[in-house]
Amino acid sequence: MKPNQGRGQLPEGVRDVLYGEAASRRHLEGILLDTYGRWGYHEVATPTLELLDNMLPGLSGQAQDELYKLVDRRGRVLALRPDMTTPIARLAGTHLQQAEPPIRLCYSAPVFRYTGGNSARPHEVRQSGVELLGEPGCQGDAEVIALVAAALRAAGVTTFALSLSHCRILDGILEQCGLSATAAAGLRQALLDRDLVRYEQAVQALGLPAADADLLMLATALGNLEQVGGALAERLQASSAQQALVEVRQVVRRFKELGVRVPVHLDLGLMRGLDYYTGLVFEAYVPGSGLPVGGGGRYDLLLRSFGRDLAATGFALDVDLLLAARERQAGRRQSTEVPFPALQGGIH
Amino acid sequence: MKPNQGRGQLPEGVRDVLYGEAASRRHLEGILLDTYGRWGYHEVATPTLELLDNMLPGLSGQAQDELYKLVDRRGRVLALRPDMTTPIARLAGTHLQQAEPPIRLCYSAPVFRYTGGNSARPHEVRQSGVELLGEPGCQGDAEVIALVAAALRAAGVTTFALSLSHCRILDGILEQCGLSATAAAGLRQALLDRDLVRYEQAVQALGLPAADADLLMLATALGNLEQVGGALAERLQASSAQQALVEVRQVVRRFKELGVRVPVHLDLGLMRGLDYYTGLVFEAYVPGSGLPVGGGGRYDLLLRSFGRDLAATGFALDVDLLLAARERQAGRRQSTEVPFPALQGGIH
Repeated sequence: MKPNQGRGQLPEGVRDVLYGEAASRRHLEGILLDTYGRWGYHEVATPTLELLDNMLPGLSGQAQDELYKLVDRRGRVLALRPDMTTPIARLAGTHLQQAEPPIRLCYSAPVFRYTGGNSARPHEVRQSGVELLGEPGCQGDAEVIALVAAALRAAGVTTFALSLSHCRILDGILEQCGLSATAAAGLRQALLDRDLVRYEQAVQALGLPAADADLLMLATALGNLEQVGGALAERLQASSAQQALVEVRQVVRRFKELGVRVPVHLDLGLMRGLDYYTGLVFEAYVPGSGLPVGGGGRYDLLLRSFGRDLAATGFALDVDLLLAARERQAGRRQSTEVPFPALQGGIH
Repeated sequence: MKPNQGRGQLPEGVRDVLYGEAASRRHLEGILLDTYGRWGYHEVATPTLELLDNMLPGLSGQAQDELYKLVDRRGRVLALRPDMTTPIARLAGTHLQQAEPPIRLCYSAPVFRYTGGNSARPHEVRQSGVELLGEPGCQGDAEVIALVAAALRAAGVTTFALSLSHCRILDGILEQCGLSATAAAGLRQALLDRDLVRYEQAVQALGLPAADADLLMLATALGNLEQVGGALAERLQASSAQQALVEVRQVVRRFKELGVRVPVHLDLGLMRGLDYYTGLVFEAYVPGSGLPVGGGGRYDLLLRSFGRDLAATGFALDVDLLLAARERQAGRRQSTEVPFPALQGGIH
């Protein structure tokens, strides 16, 4: 065994960034923050370490398992922040109690998730994003989606597409089929893992009436808002799920009015892996990557946990995925490739 | 107890950065990195988390105690990086085995130290700095000091001063007095804590001959390079300590030739709290702050631990202290205030 055996190794899921890439990344982060700034968003920074308890309100069980945790000298459990949304909600509850809404905040920072198992996702991810606090409803959702589009274009990514969904649609489907909490959680997790084989097997194993099984399978549909939306509108009974579909259409109409021209899909399987979402959720895809380059959505209840009751929405972009997309798209700006990872429907 | 009791609190020693400050800080970091870039330094980034074992070679016992540690899912102990010098030494040992020296690297990143007790020092500090690998001797030391001066000026800090020392001077003094390892360590720690009362009491308690006690007290001197240096040159016996004094004078001459015009002091009590230093060490002071705005020095043995045997030197600036200094100096550029925290000698 050599004396330096093991020296120079890194922990799982992290890497060094050398030379040109480090400078390009910083330059890209500057472009994004400048874009948010022109839209009225103010930059904030929060600590890398947070009290664990403050990070839990918005996280699903799996996301809680993925936290990097440590105990400080006073015996308190800390976590490396898993995203910036919850720290900014905490910040709003302390520093911005008196600020007049809407409050527009932006950031660029690393976040940490111990994505174990077979996942090749990096454990430390630089995120660049915004939070729009105190702007309820479609207007706020349309603004942040329009800002995603503006940020991607400013970053030099001209070809991209959006997947949209709404938390209450899937809630409505699962409820309507009368599933147990355990069965519903299993289906949610399969959707979150994008494991459609497991999802379909689980649906079959439930032995439901054909109409319910069909409706559950519709939750895996990815496609044209009118087609999939129309099929859903016919079958959904809960008025809240029907209303959610209407909201999705309103947001799309509104951001088109704001000048956003981009392929849009309804993707009912879109699960952001975070429990704090309450309304419209979305992801942005670029050609050549199966992972979304960014995403976000509405979280109207999270700030209440920190003592400031404001509806909110926002998004985060994965800076390294965006940097790779920019480099792929440089030189082939006229690409007409449709960037959805698993396209099953038409372009809206 | 209110339902939100405790919500919104932060871990010890960390803080939120709001609005203007976050943007100013990012802007300042850009100015510094651009300055390093013009001097031929290439930006790199390393992970926030490192394997604990890789962080230990350069750290004193106290600095090891100040690490934030955690255990990963495979049972390996990780640490939040306490500085960027050791991670960059690790990076050089892996990614830059074939690179032709000198290698010039720079960075801007948060580092983490659990400075307990009564310390009001923040636990998460944004550092901006450079490492110059494979440039041994006075030429390398003078280059990084000249770059500190250029970076401070680019940042808008026009009034600052330098404290210099050399590891082998204090080593020579302690050796010459024949102190036990325990006694020497106690004196070093008192100097590191800048606790001159404790230092003097410890010296008295040793019951040494007057000449030795006088020499030990000279180690607390802060002052004119010719005065303090001359007094030392007369009393130091070890040729390595004498040679160290000569090196300090050579570095000062060399960076003056490079156009650096700045007050310089010899500060033998200057201890950077890191065991990896082997030669010239320095700190930069600005008016209005008792803490150095930055510092660095030569560490010729650290890279050997990572399998690449290169002499090296570098520095790190505390971005938040620098930001505060810049704001204090904006508008009073003609200040003649001498920025040493505890001036006991003249200006060189």
